[in-house]
Amino acid sequence: MPKYVYLFKEGNKDMLDLLGGKGANLAEMTSLNMPVPSGFTITSKACLNFYEEKENLNEEIIKEIFENLEKLEKITGKCFGKKENPLLLSVRSGAKSSMPGMMDTILNLGMNDEIADALTEKTQNPRFVYDSYRRLIMMYADVVKGLNKNEFENCLEKLKKEKNVTKDIDLTAEDMYYLTKEFKKIYENLSGTSFPENPKIQLLDAVKAVFKSWNNERAIYYRKLNQIPDNWGTAVNVQEMVYGNNGKNSGTGVVFSRNPATGEKNLFGEYLINAQGEDVVAGVRTPLEIKELQNQMPQIYEELKRNAEILETHYKDMQDMEFTIENNRLYMLQTRSGKRTALAAIKIAVDLVKEGQITKEEAILRVDEESLETLLHKTFQKESLENGEIIGKGLPASPGAASGMIYFNAKDVIKAKEEQKEVILVRTETSPEDIEGMHHAKGILTIRGGMTSHAAVVARGMGSCCVSGVNEFRINEKEKELITPNHVYKEGDIISLDGTTGFVYDGKIEEEEPKISNEFALFMSWVDERRKLKIRANADNEKDAKEALKFGAEGIGLVRTEHMFFDKARIFEFRKMILANTKEERIDALQKILPYQKEDFKNIYRVMKSLPVVIRYLDPPLHEFLPKTKEEKEKLAIALNIKMEDIEKRIDSLKEFNPMMGHRGCRLDITYEEIAKMQTRAILEAALEVRDEQIEVIPKIMIPLIGDEAEFKYIKDIILKEADLIQKERQTTISYEIGTMIEVPRATLIARNLAKIGTFFSFGTNDLTQLTYGFSRDDAGKFLKDYYEKQIFKEDPFKSIDVKGVGVLMKVAIKEARKERPNISLGVCGEHGGDPKSIQFCHNIGLDYVSCSPYRIPIARLAAAKAAIRETK
Amino acid sequence: MPKYVYLFKEGNKDMLDLLGGKGANLAEMTSLNMPVPSGFTITSKACLNFYEEKENLNEEIIKEIFENLEKLEKITGKCFGKKENPLLLSVRSGAKSSMPGMMDTILNLGMNDEIADALTEKTQNPRFVYDSYRRLIMMYADVVKGLNKNEFENCLEKLKKEKNVTKDIDLTAEDMYYLTKEFKKIYENLSGTSFPENPKIQLLDAVKAVFKSWNNERAIYYRKLNQIPDNWGTAVNVQEMVYGNNGKNSGTGVVFSRNPATGEKNLFGEYLINAQGEDVVAGVRTPLEIKELQNQMPQIYEELKRNAEILETHYKDMQDMEFTIENNRLYMLQTRSGKRTALAAIKIAVDLVKEGQITKEEAILRVDEESLETLLHKTFQKESLENGEIIGKGLPASPGAASGMIYFNAKDVIKAKEEQKEVILVRTETSPEDIEGMHHAKGILTIRGGMTSHAAVVARGMGSCCVSGVNEFRINEKEKELITPNHVYKEGDIISLDGTTGFVYDGKIEEEEPKISNEFALFMSWVDERRKLKIRANADNEKDAKEALKFGAEGIGLVRTEHMFFDKARIFEFRKMILANTKEERIDALQKILPYQKEDFKNIYRVMKSLPVVIRYLDPPLHEFLPKTKEEKEKLAIALNIKMEDIEKRIDSLKEFNPMMGHRGCRLDITYEEIAKMQTRAILEAALEVRDEQIEVIPKIMIPLIGDEAEFKYIKDIILKEADLIQKERQTTISYEIGTMIEVPRATLIARNLAKIGTFFSFGTNDLTQLTYGFSRDDAGKFLKDYYEKQIFKEDPFKSIDVKGVGVLMKVAIKEARKERPNISLGVCGEHGGDPKSIQFCHNIGLDYVSCSPYRIPIARLAAAKAAIRETK
Repeated sequence: MPKYVYLFKEGNKDMLDLLGGKGANLAEMTSLNMPVPSGFTITSKACLNFYEEKENLNEEIIKEIFENLEKLEKITGKCFGKKENPLLLSVRSGAKSSMPGMMDTILNLGMNDEIADALTEKTQNPRFVYDSYRRLIMMYADVVKGLNKNEFENCLEKLKKEKNVTKDIDLTAEDMYYLTKEFKKIYENLSGTSFPENPKIQLLDAVKAVFKSWNNERAIYYRKLNQIPDNWGTAVNVQEMVYGNNGKNSGTGVVFSRNPATGEKNLFGEYLINAQGEDVVAGVRTPLEIKELQNQMPQIYEELKRNAEILETHYKDMQDMEFTIENNRLYMLQTRSGKRTALAAIKIAVDLVKEGQITKEEAILRVDEESLETLLHKTFQKESLENGEIIGKGLPASPGAASGMIYFNAKDVIKAKEEQKEVILVRTETSPEDIEGMHHAKGILTIRGGMTSHAAVVARGMGSCCVSGVNEFRINEKEKELITPNHVYKEGDIISLDGTTGFVYDGKIEEEEPKISNEFALFMSWVDERRKLKIRANADNEKDAKEALKFGAEGIGLVRTEHMFFDKARIFEFRKMILANTKEERIDALQKILPYQKEDFKNIYRVMKSLPVVIRYLDPPLHEFLPKTKEEKEKLAIALNIKMEDIEKRIDSLKEFNPMMGHRGCRLDITYEEIAKMQTRAILEAALEVRDEQIEVIPKIMIPLIGDEAEFKYIKDIILKEADLIQKERQTTISYEIGTMIEVPRATLIARNLAKIGTFFSFGTNDLTQLTYGFSRDDAGKFLKDYYEKQIFKEDPFKSIDVKGVGVLMKVAIKEARKERPNISLGVCGEHGGDPKSIQFCHNIGLDYVSCSPYRIPIARLAAAKAAIRETK
Repeated sequence: MPKYVYLFKEGNKDMLDLLGGKGANLAEMTSLNMPVPSGFTITSKACLNFYEEKENLNEEIIKEIFENLEKLEKITGKCFGKKENPLLLSVRSGAKSSMPGMMDTILNLGMNDEIADALTEKTQNPRFVYDSYRRLIMMYADVVKGLNKNEFENCLEKLKKEKNVTKDIDLTAEDMYYLTKEFKKIYENLSGTSFPENPKIQLLDAVKAVFKSWNNERAIYYRKLNQIPDNWGTAVNVQEMVYGNNGKNSGTGVVFSRNPATGEKNLFGEYLINAQGEDVVAGVRTPLEIKELQNQMPQIYEELKRNAEILETHYKDMQDMEFTIENNRLYMLQTRSGKRTALAAIKIAVDLVKEGQITKEEAILRVDEESLETLLHKTFQKESLENGEIIGKGLPASPGAASGMIYFNAKDVIKAKEEQKEVILVRTETSPEDIEGMHHAKGILTIRGGMTSHAAVVARGMGSCCVSGVNEFRINEKEKELITPNHVYKEGDIISLDGTTGFVYDGKIEEEEPKISNEFALFMSWVDERRKLKIRANADNEKDAKEALKFGAEGIGLVRTEHMFFDKARIFEFRKMILANTKEERIDALQKILPYQKEDFKNIYRVMKSLPVVIRYLDPPLHEFLPKTKEEKEKLAIALNIKMEDIEKRIDSLKEFNPMMGHRGCRLDITYEEIAKMQTRAILEAALEVRDEQIEVIPKIMIPLIGDEAEFKYIKDIILKEADLIQKERQTTISYEIGTMIEVPRATLIARNLAKIGTFFSFGTNDLTQLTYGFSRDDAGKFLKDYYEKQIFKEDPFKSIDVKGVGVLMKVAIKEARKERPNISLGVCGEHGGDPKSIQFCHNIGLDYVSCSPYRIPIARLAAAKAAIRETK
């Protein structure tokens, strides 16, 4: 038989599962001799039992509750339900994981008319007694009976109006007495029964109500959002009431042991005199800063400060505490590790290490990887944001904040940028053609597409802000209009995007530059000492490479050469190449692209110096590079001096049913060897030409989409031949490596044979995920919505690596590859390379590196260090 | 050091690798004391060495050749290059695998002026001597020197004209002498050197020339076509000449130990008196039937017959033999297992068993699976075919022969069929919309698409003839024209398709019905006794099911429910369902489809009785069902009473980037539960309603495209609920099973969890292949062409299961599934289910059944039996 109820002194902080966060910490504080009002916790097991028994408390639980109530009476010397020295109780929820405000609470329990009379006599403070009583009635009506609170509130408001006061605190004892009587009448009217005068009934009903609140709509929603299992249940804490509303020597407040915004070591918080907790939350009265308390009640302040220090030292972390002062006596009502900004998280972690409270490893484990994003990107100024009008919401596809004028295509964006305008690119969805425009835009808004759409991936890579998939908006391309549910925005109108939340705002919102502290650098140096995974960046040009280096990249794990082709000067030759009728024409066009591409590589080499640079050969299907509008096609036809009809025919012939699985990746090199040759030449000649600048690179050539060893061998031979030719031409030798992406399921299965040919693998987990699941990233958004809603999928496999499927294939590939080539270099260069969960997995399966967008690098570094530390534990 | 040369008496029939087919069998015949002219074989190793040494014979090989020449001189008592009793030789190629006519041969080697003189004296037959001599010169010029044969032939023709004769045989000894002299002159003119009088030089040059002929263009092409490795090399057989052209007591011929067309046990073949082998091939003189020989040379005939019997008994198979008669002496020049028609193959195998020559198992192994196709389909009459004009060639997508009038869309096909016309459907590519038209057409021609395109798959399923991917043709849809390189065919014009070869013919070619023999049934009964795999059919309607049963199906492994929706009566409601704005509208439309679908299932159950029927839920993306032309869209808009604009918007919204990986399969059931409910109801109610007819089916419901256990569980729950409802409504119980396709790579990895939910799996190896390789069946044709050409891929993975990739995943799935559910039923229902190689693999990995198109069933039965027999060996 389980034990369903624990006195505070029977528990401790590690009994989270059973007692919930609040209960466990109340128990812990009790054992630390903190001034905690006595009480007991009804366990989450009891809650689960309550649901098993169809929302009934079983006899055992009831028995234990009353047994512990008796013990509580003994501890406090008070009697529950007796007018001599009555015991009043609070009943609060408290689950394993904090669910702030989601579940219910009832205060002042144990009051009835008789006890109120007696208490008035005892305290000589009728205002306090009836204030408490009327609060109980209203809370009870709301929480236990589910009655509408409006009538109670209207009654209170009416009275305040009559009395010509604005604050509750200005009401008199008589007013409170009046309200108590009125509230009882309202209660009777609404519920058809009278308010229960029996405190034991009140108690059991309150416990049941709190259990029930585990399954109210907002709690369920909150759990879904925060991935908290439905089968945890909540504990209930029953505790002796203490009263912050017991006159001007009483009060209540919230205090942090350090500043949660900046991390500075100062008591931080606020309080209200003569108030109960809910008044602080209600915001009717403006609370005072905690330092005021130093003047107002210096002894209490000192005690609070001491308690904060004890708790912080005990928990070895910044604490977020609730307290109440009753007649000059301090009570601690709650403590927990406090939420903090990323800035504060790092400062606190570093300071705690300096203070000798925690180890560097513990400090590292304390900091949430994702929070670092906010340190690297612009944000909106808080005040300006609060005044902003939300006009829509999409997916937070790439973090940051951007205000600017909207333009509807890359060309217009570039023009506007030249006119020194700040620009937001608005597209139904982006394609590689938009790259240049995306580069020049501060932010990107798309109507379609998910977290891993083209816009999202590219924006994250560039560190630009992006909100994707705002389905409620429409675009009228022709009129250049963005149509929102309430308004039509025209070209040049200003909107603001918050890429961290997904909200879109009307007009301009002031931005704030990211702040990076000294502690950050120190902290990251600890991180780097501990991690085993190398962190490389996905970077396609000099600018990205510089950014990557700034954020701590140890090389480039992925240069997507195709992005280089979208530049105005090149796209024409590239299109000519695609539309060529003969090999000669194609070679001719490629010859014109060669110097551009070579220059790009040289610039990247110059940034990265001796660090590894992995360059992927052309990957997307060729039709992605071709013009889409009639206008553009006509232009191309004139430029190439061929018939419009022929252009259209060729474009048509390149159309594919499933381009993701079509003529792309290494398949292009097999059909058009001259592309592979040109790229080989650009990569190797660039490396040779930067030698004069004392830069020695060993380029790593990466072939995408390999599924068979014969493919890989064939292309390797092309590269070797071309490399030999170059070396002969230039009378020199050059070192380079050849490797492959592992992104087709078959590649994982034949990894051993591929390892005979290449010296490194990079898992392309985006495509590998698409193919392993058999769904297309670009189309999945539509149906995965239903999957999340119906709880078939809990997580987006494009965000964190699918360990049960994709992960299994990765493990097979690693095992097989190392059989053949034990020192093969293995990495990941998909979007997953910047995802902490996935990085943990990559560490676990023994990869050598992950490669991610420049802005994700600090996150990746931290995640890698955490993984390494967890491994040693 | 390898031995490069073997005397015939040193070899045997099992030394195929080294001696080639011809050499090994000459050696075997020698050891059987057949009258084989003596000789030796230069091995294929020598050929490989020849290429390694840059087309030179190394000294060791030359040494061995001359050593063996000396031995040959001893055996024959003749001398090579000496005028006293000169030895003349033939030099013939002979690779491990027969490559008829692809490589070179030189006869009469060892002749020169001096020897010709001496031989004339000895034989007193100058005509024969100079006939042989002039033949040598011409062959030598052609094969060794690569000179143009035309001048030689013109010279011969000119002489015949002068002499006013039409046949070579009518030329006199003087004529032959004259020709010899003239040929020598021509030889000198063309080559600039004189004809080599030294027989040893002749011999070495001839050997080199035959080695070289391994790599002539037609041999390379033949090897590619027949998947013969380039690194086998050919052996060379050097053999004493015997002369069929040595007067009227001489002759030459080809004979089979049984009739290769019918299998009847009669000597079958033809011969020519006073001729060399090449004369039979040249076809100038009409050969006589072998039975004539019985009259002409009864003793020789008897000897030949006895030899044939000995060889057949020895080889335990019908033999294809070459013989020569020289002055009333019979010589056997070659024997090999003879090629035969499928009809003959079965009769011969059955007869050999009856004669006690081979076991039933051996008989089964002898018959080629693919050859059975020809027994089941119409063919073109041989003569009519020979007169046909080929107008194009595509892929032999579905076997059979069809002549008919061309129509360009399903509607026109149906109309023409109603007018009793025989119709060929001509489309750029087909889509599910064309199904009804395809049903009514005798044959299908498509411009695009490969062996596994929609047209190919559906046609094979229906047993209709189909030629796909005739890239050289174009279609003008508007004008209803088929534009071939040389002609424009209009609607109603007649063409003929040979689905077995891929050829398209102008006009009508007479067809022939397939013939099925008694031996076939007996043979198939042996087959069925031995196989372990069950064979089921992919069948979508009553007609297919009947066909399947006729061919021996043991159940239906795949009913594709979507094909049922394309019927005129249903497509409208189905489209209404797709375009529905609300769930209610959707349910309403589905209600109208329900009775149709139920009736379809009942009809299938009635055919299959108690045999298993596996029904797959709706699989393709919904947009496949929507109208594509403006006209059709308008019609639908009117019928549904909604705006054209709205129709287009909805169709647009269903468009996908990669539909193969889009919203299809089980994903549809998750979004639209009502579809799964309707299909459940149709399947189960149908089963309940045929009970009155004493038919007890246990329907097997199969969910496509499952990739996660949560998906499968979710849909299973929908089915269970609906089934419960039906059972309650009808106050009865019904047994059914629920299983899934394994066609997404991830499904193979989580098979153990899927086996907790479902009781059977069917591998959908088409999609599994697409996703494992990451290429789309519909697009791969374009680039796989390059893969085959560049020998990167040797086989089409859509034809035979890719054992190294897809096969590995299948094995994982089987192992995992059986851990959870040891008796789980496992099968394959992709196109691979009818492919012998894949069936062998399915047997090896322990599947329970394969499911294939009805017309592939006999093939599958045979393949399964062969696999079982091979296992026991």
